[in-house]
Amino acid sequence: MTTLRKETPMRHGKRVGVWLAGARGSVATTVIAGAAALGGGLAPPVGCVTERPGLRELPLPAFDALVFGGHDIVGTPLPKRAEALAEAGVLPGRLLRLVAGELEAADRDVVTAAGPALDGEAAPQAVLAAELAADITAFRKRHDLETVVVVNLSSTEEVPADREEFHTLDGLRRALETEPAVLPASALYAYAAFTAGCSFVDFTPSTGARLPALRELAEQRGLPYTGRDGKTGETLVKSALAPMFVHRALRVRSWSGTNLLGGGDGATLERPEAALSKTESKTRVLDEILGDGVEGTVHIDNVPALGEWKTAWDHISFEGFLGVPMTMQFTWQGCDSALAAPLVLDLVRLMALAVEAGDSGPQEQFGFFFKDPEGSADPSLDAQYRLLVDWAGRVSSP
Amino acid sequence: MTTLRKETPMRHGKRVGVWLAGARGSVATTVIAGAAALGGGLAPPVGCVTERPGLRELPLPAFDALVFGGHDIVGTPLPKRAEALAEAGVLPGRLLRLVAGELEAADRDVVTAAGPALDGEAAPQAVLAAELAADITAFRKRHDLETVVVVNLSSTEEVPADREEFHTLDGLRRALETEPAVLPASALYAYAAFTAGCSFVDFTPSTGARLPALRELAEQRGLPYTGRDGKTGETLVKSALAPMFVHRALRVRSWSGTNLLGGGDGATLERPEAALSKTESKTRVLDEILGDGVEGTVHIDNVPALGEWKTAWDHISFEGFLGVPMTMQFTWQGCDSALAAPLVLDLVRLMALAVEAGDSGPQEQFGFFFKDPEGSADPSLDAQYRLLVDWAGRVSSP
Amino acid sequence: MTTLRKETPMRHGKRVGVWLAGARGSVATTVIAGAAALGGGLAPPVGCVTERPGLRELPLPAFDALVFGGHDIVGTPLPKRAEALAEAGVLPGRLLRLVAGELEAADRDVVTAAGPALDGEAAPQAVLAAELAADITAFRKRHDLETVVVVNLSSTEEVPADREEFHTLDGLRRALETEPAVLPASALYAYAAFTAGCSFVDFTPSTGARLPALRELAEQRGLPYTGRDGKTGETLVKSALAPMFVHRALRVRSWSGTNLLGGGDGATLERPEAALSKTESKTRVLDEILGDGVEGTVHIDNVPALGEWKTAWDHISFEGFLGVPMTMQFTWQGCDSALAAPLVLDLVRLMALAVEAGDSGPQEQFGFFFKDPEGSADPSLDAQYRLLVDWAGRVSSP
Amino acid sequence: MTTLRKETPMRHGKRVGVWLAGARGSVATTVIAGAAALGGGLAPPVGCVTERPGLRELPLPAFDALVFGGHDIVGTPLPKRAEALAEAGVLPGRLLRLVAGELEAADRDVVTAAGPALDGEAAPQAVLAAELAADITAFRKRHDLETVVVVNLSSTEEVPADREEFHTLDGLRRALETEPAVLPASALYAYAAFTAGCSFVDFTPSTGARLPALRELAEQRGLPYTGRDGKTGETLVKSALAPMFVHRALRVRSWSGTNLLGGGDGATLERPEAALSKTESKTRVLDEILGDGVEGTVHIDNVPALGEWKTAWDHISFEGFLGVPMTMQFTWQGCDSALAAPLVLDLVRLMALAVEAGDSGPQEQFGFFFKDPEGSADPSLDAQYRLLVDWAGRVSSP
Repeated sequence: MTTLRKETPMRHGKRVGVWLAGARGSVATTVIAGAAALGGGLAPPVGCVTERPGLRELPLPAFDALVFGGHDIVGTPLPKRAEALAEAGVLPGRLLRLVAGELEAADRDVVTAAGPALDGEAAPQAVLAAELAADITAFRKRHDLETVVVVNLSSTEEVPADREEFHTLDGLRRALETEPAVLPASALYAYAAFTAGCSFVDFTPSTGARLPALRELAEQRGLPYTGRDGKTGETLVKSALAPMFVHRALRVRSWSGTNLLGGGDGATLERPEAALSKTESKTRVLDEILGDGVEGTVHIDNVPALGEWKTAWDHISFEGFLGVPMTMQFTWQGCDSALAAPLVLDLVRLMALAVEAGDSGPQEQFGFFFKDPEGSADPSLDAQYRLLVDWAGRVSSP
Repeated sequence: MTTLRKETPMRHGKRVGVWLAGARGSVATTVIAGAAALGGGLAPPVGCVTERPGLRELPLPAFDALVFGGHDIVGTPLPKRAEALAEAGVLPGRLLRLVAGELEAADRDVVTAAGPALDGEAAPQAVLAAELAADITAFRKRHDLETVVVVNLSSTEEVPADREEFHTLDGLRRALETEPAVLPASALYAYAAFTAGCSFVDFTPSTGARLPALRELAEQRGLPYTGRDGKTGETLVKSALAPMFVHRALRVRSWSGTNLLGGGDGATLERPEAALSKTESKTRVLDEILGDGVEGTVHIDNVPALGEWKTAWDHISFEGFLGVPMTMQFTWQGCDSALAAPLVLDLVRLMALAVEAGDSGPQEQFGFFFKDPEGSADPSLDAQYRLLVDWAGRVSSP
Repeated sequence: MTTLRKETPMRHGKRVGVWLAGARGSVATTVIAGAAALGGGLAPPVGCVTERPGLRELPLPAFDALVFGGHDIVGTPLPKRAEALAEAGVLPGRLLRLVAGELEAADRDVVTAAGPALDGEAAPQAVLAAELAADITAFRKRHDLETVVVVNLSSTEEVPADREEFHTLDGLRRALETEPAVLPASALYAYAAFTAGCSFVDFTPSTGARLPALRELAEQRGLPYTGRDGKTGETLVKSALAPMFVHRALRVRSWSGTNLLGGGDGATLERPEAALSKTESKTRVLDEILGDGVEGTVHIDNVPALGEWKTAWDHISFEGFLGVPMTMQFTWQGCDSALAAPLVLDLVRLMALAVEAGDSGPQEQFGFFFKDPEGSADPSLDAQYRLLVDWAGRVSSP
Repeated sequence: MTTLRKETPMRHGKRVGVWLAGARGSVATTVIAGAAALGGGLAPPVGCVTERPGLRELPLPAFDALVFGGHDIVGTPLPKRAEALAEAGVLPGRLLRLVAGELEAADRDVVTAAGPALDGEAAPQAVLAAELAADITAFRKRHDLETVVVVNLSSTEEVPADREEFHTLDGLRRALETEPAVLPASALYAYAAFTAGCSFVDFTPSTGARLPALRELAEQRGLPYTGRDGKTGETLVKSALAPMFVHRALRVRSWSGTNLLGGGDGATLERPEAALSKTESKTRVLDEILGDGVEGTVHIDNVPALGEWKTAWDHISFEGFLGVPMTMQFTWQGCDSALAAPLVLDLVRLMALAVEAGDSGPQEQFGFFFKDPEGSADPSLDAQYRLLVDWAGRVSSP
C-alpha cells in the first residue's frame, strides 16, 4: 500500500468527476443535490463517514469540487426528479431552490441512453463499450477534471451464467469484438470505466467489476475499484448486531428478515432473478459472522405504498445458558436514498484518494460500505471501520 | 500488568471458592446449577464468554473446580428454588435430578442471615464485617480453597448519600468501629471480602467496592475487584448498536427505552430510589458513546406476570442525510437469570486468574461484562471485547 | 331521543359556526385547513367517520358550511402555523396556497386572549365567562350562523380538587360571582358556551363540562355536550383489540404501554399532574373491557425530536389454554393532528345535528370518538360504532 | 333454524364421541389432555369460548363427557407425545401424571393407518371410505356414544384441481367406486363421516367438506358441517383490527405479514402448494373487510428452531387525513396447539348441539372460529361473535 504525496492536497485543489450509471434515479438525484447542499454549507454532513474524525483529516476532494455527469435511460430532468423527492420527504423542500443551478448543470452532463443501446442487441459490445468510454472521456475533458470516478447506481441485474470469457482479459476482449451480449450492463460499465482510465464503484448487487477478466484489466491499468451493494439498512444492522451474539457466546438459532420496499427498487427486486442477487449479498454477512446452520429466510417485498421508504423487520431466536430460548427483534424504517447518498459521496472521495495514492485492483478497505465486499476481511461492522481508519492512517502518513 | 506463572495452571489443579451474597436468588441458583451441569458435561457452555477462542486457552479454573457458598436472607433451600426455576422454564427440567447433589452441597454452605444483622441496627458495623469475613474464611478453610471470589448478587440498593468517611480507609474504619449503619450492605460486603483476603465482583448497580476508602483497602491488600451491574439485555444491545450510528455519522436524536421485568428484580426496581441507580447505569453507555443531547427516558416497570422473563423495547429516532428523520426499534425478550449466570461464572474464573496474576484494584479489562464499568475505557461492546482479549493475551504470555 | 325534522336538511342550507379554544394549535390549524380542502373538493374525506355509509346520508352541515373562529393565547397567525405543519409533513405542501384564503379568514375570527385573563387572577370568574360568551355571540351574529359548536382543543389541565360548588348550578354561580379561580379554564369554557346557547365538545382530557353543575346548566338550556379526550391512537387500538381477548376467553395478564410524543402535547403531558388526567382516561378502557387485575403501566414521554408525530408501543402478555403464556405487541406511529382533525369535524357536524334534533345533556352515542366518554356504554370500539350508527338511524327516520 | 328440545339437556347426560383425523398430532394431543384437565377440574377453561357468558348456559356436553378416538399415520402413543409437548412448554408438566389415564384410553381408540391406505393407490376410494366409516361406527358402538363429531386436524393438503365429479353426489359416488384417487384425504374423510352419520369439522385449510357433492350428501343425511382453517393467530388479529380502520375511515394502503412457524406445520407449509391454500385463507379476511387494492404479501416460513411456537409480524401502512402516511405494526407470539385446542373443544361441543337441534349443511354461525368460513357473513370478529351468540340464543329458547 503506497502513501499519499502530501504536496498535492486535493481538498483545496483539483476537481473530481463523478460519472453515474443511473444518473437520474432517486439515489443519484439525492447525491447531486446533497453535494450541492454540503458544498454550499447549506446542511451539515450528517451520514458522511468521511467527515468523521480519523477520516476528515485526509486530503479528500471537497464536496464543491465534485462535478457530476452520467447516463440514464430516463429523460426526466434532475430538477424535476428533485421536486418529486422533496414531495416524498427525501429532500427538504427549502433546499430545492438553492441547489437548482447545480441540478441543472449536472443534468446537462447526463446522456439519455436508450435501453437497446445498453442491451446491445445488434452491434458487438466492444462498440458500445467504446461509446461509453468516449462519453466519460469527453466529460473529463469538458470539465478539465483531475480524475473521474464511475459509480454504478442502476437497477439490480440478474446474476449472469458464468462464461469462460469472463476469466481472462484476452478472452473477454475477443468475445466483445464479435458478440452483442457478452457482459451484463454493470460489467460493461466497469470495462468502459477502466478503458477510459477511471476507477469504478459498484453500489448495486450486480456483477460490476467482479469478474477475473475485469480485475486483470484494472490491475493492468493501475486502477482501483470497489463494491458491491451499498450497506444501508437491514444488513448494516446485522453486521453491527451479529458480533454481539458471537462475543457473548449466545447461540443464534434463526435469523429471519422481511424487507418492505417501495420505489423502483421494490419493483426491480420483485423479479425473482434480481432478488436472488440481492438476498445472496444480504445473507452473506450472517453466514460469515455466525457460521452455517442459522435458519431463516430473507424476503424482499415490493410495496409501492411505501414510496421512497423501506421497512425491515428482523426476528432472531437464540439460545442462552442451558439452552433457554430467547428472542430479539428489530425494525428499521429508513429512506433508502438518504441512506445511500452520503455513502456514495464518501466512496467517491475515498476512491479519488486511492487513485492519487496509486492503489489498484479491489479495495478491501472499503468493505465497511458494502453488503458483499471484495476479499475475506472480517465482515463485522466494527472490524470494517477499523480497517478503513487504519488505511486512512497509512495513506496519509508521510 | 503482570503475567501469569505458567507452572501452576489452575484448570487442572486448585479449587476456587465462590461466595455469593444472595446465594438463593434466581441468578445464584442458576449459577450453581449451571456450573454443575457444565462441570458434568451435561450441557454445552452457551453464554460463557470464557469458553470462546482467545479466552478458553487461559489457565482458568474448570467449572467443576468451583465450590459455592454464601449468605441469603431467604431460607428456601437451593433444590426447591431450582424446581421453581424449572417450572418457569429457566432451568431444563431434565437437569434437576442430575445436579441435585451439587445444589444440596452448596445449600449446606449458605448461611441464612437475618435481615437485621445486615442492616446492623444495633452493633457497630465493624462487628458485622468481622462476622461476614469469618464466614468466608471458614468456608475457605472448610473446603481447602486456593482462593475465594466474593460476588454480590443481592437486591439493588438505593444510592447512599456521600460521607466524608467513604473517602479514606482510616476514616471508614473509625466510623465502622462506632456506628451501626455506615455502609450500605453491598459495600460492607466488599469491605468484608477484602478483609478476608478475597477478590470482589459487584454484579448489581449497588455501591459495592465503588468508594475511595474501599479501593484503598483493596490496593493495600493487593486484591482485585470489578463491577458493576451485569450487562445482560437492553444495555448490551445499546453498547453494540450505538457505535453503528456513530461510525455511520448518523445523528441520533432520541433513544427511549421501556423495560418490563417480572421476578424479584421488577419489584425491587419499582422502588424509585433503587430504580435510580439502575437507570443511571443504563443511560451511561449512550451518553458516553453518542454524546450529550440525546433525548429519551428509560423506564423500568414491574410486571409480575412476566415471571423470570423481561422484555425491553427501545425506540431510536435519528437523522440521516440532509436531516431526513428515520427510526429504529428493537425488542429484547430474555430470561434474566439465564443471561446473568454464565457471566457470573466468567467473572469468577477471570477474577481467579487476575488474583493469580497478582492484579489488584479495579479491573477495567472486565468492562465488557458491566453496564457501569470502572474506568473511562471506550464503552462500545466491540472495544470492550478487544480490551478483554488483549488482557488475556498479556496475562497468558510468558 | 327525538328525530330530526327532515324538512330542513342542513347539508344544503344553514352555516354552522365552530368556536375553538386553542384555535391556533396544531389540531385546530389542521381542522381549519382540512375543512377548506374538503369543502373545495381538493382532497377525499379520509379519516372522516361522518362520510361513511350509514352516516353520510344524514342531513349534516357540509364542510364548506363550517365557519371557524376561537380563542388562543398564541398570536402566530394560522397561515404561518400551516406552513410549519406543511414543513413537518402534517399538511401537504401543495394545499397551502389553495386554502390560504380560508386560513386568513378564520384567523381574523380568532381572539388572542392573554393567559392571565383565563387564569382569572383578579376579577371574579363570572366576568371572564361573560366575556367569553360575548365573543362567541358576536362571532355568531357577525356571520349569521344557525348554531355554534364550541370545541375545547387547548392544552391538558391538571385534575382540579373537587368543590361543593361544582355540584349545583346555584352554588357554582354564587362562587363565580365572587371568586377569581373557581373553575379550570376548560370548565369555564363549557360554562360560557352554555351561557351563549351553544353546544360543547371537549376533545381533551380536561374537566370541560364534566361537572354536575354544568350538566344542570346544559339540560336547563336544552343544549347537548360531549367528550372527552379524543381517541386517536393507542387507546383506539386498545378498544379494538381488547374485545378480541375477551371473545376468545384469553386471559390478559398485563398490558403495558409507552407513548412517545413530540410537539406541544408531549411537553404538556410531561407535567405529572397533566399526565395523570391523560393516563387515567387511557387506562379506563382496559379496566372496563378486561376487568380489574390486569398489570401494567402507561407512560407518556415527551420526545421533542419526534415533532408532530407520536409512537406508542404496547406489550400484552396473556394466558392461553392450560395457562400457556403468550405475547402480543404493537406499535402505532401516527401524526396526532392528522388523526384528531377529522374527528373534530365529525363531532362538529354531529353536534349540529344533535342540536337540531333537540337533544340535550351528555351525548353518550358519541363515545366512539373518546377515550373517556360519558355514560357506562360498552367501551368496545365495535359496540361504540353500532351505538353511533343506531342513533343516526333513529335521528334521521321520520 | 330449529330450536333445541330442552327436555334432553346434554350437559348432564349423553356422551359425545370426537374422532380426530391426525389424532396424535400436537393439536390433538393438547385437545385430549386439555379435555381431561378441564373435565377433572384441574385447570380453568381459559381459551374456551363456550365457557363465556351467553354460551356456557347452553346444554353443551361436559368436557368429561367427550370420548376421543381417531386415525393417525404416526404410531407414537399419546402419553409420549404429551411428554414432548410438556418439554416444549405447551402442556404444564404437573398435569402429565394427572391425565395419563385419559391419554392412554384415547390412544387405544386411535387406529394407526398407513399412509398408502389414505392415498389409495390401488383399491377404489369407496373401499377406503367404507373402512374409515366402519372405524368410526365401531368407535361409536364400542363406547355407546350419542353422536360422534369428526374433526380434521391432519396436515394441510395442496388445493386439488376441480373435477366434474366434485359437483354432484351421484357423479362423485360413481368415481369413488372405480378410481383410487378421486378425493384428497380431507374430503374423503368428510365423505366417510357423513356416510357414518356424523357431523364434520375441518380445522385445516384443506378441502374437507367444501365440495358441492359433499354438501349434497350432508344435507341429504341431515348432518351439519363447518370449517375451515382454525383462526388462531395473525388472522384472528386481522379480523379484530381491520374493522377499526374501516370504522375510522382510515385508508389502508398495504398490509404485509410474515409468519414464522416451527413444528410440523412449518415444514408442511414450506411446500408451496400447501402454503397456497394457507395464504389464500389468510388473505381472504382483509379483502372482504378492506376491499381490493390493499398491497402486501403474506409469507409463511418454516423455522424449526421455534419448535411449537409461532411469531407473526404484520406491517400496515395507512393514510389519514389529507393523505398523511402512518403505520401500525404488530407481533403475535403464540403457541399454535394451545391456541387451537380450546377452539376444537368449542367446535365439538357446539356441533353436538347443532346435531341435536337438527341443523344440517354448512353452519355459518361458527365462522368466528375460522379463517375461511362458509358463507358470506361479515368477517369482522365482532360481527362473527354476535352471529354465534345470536344462534345460541335461538337454539336455546323454547
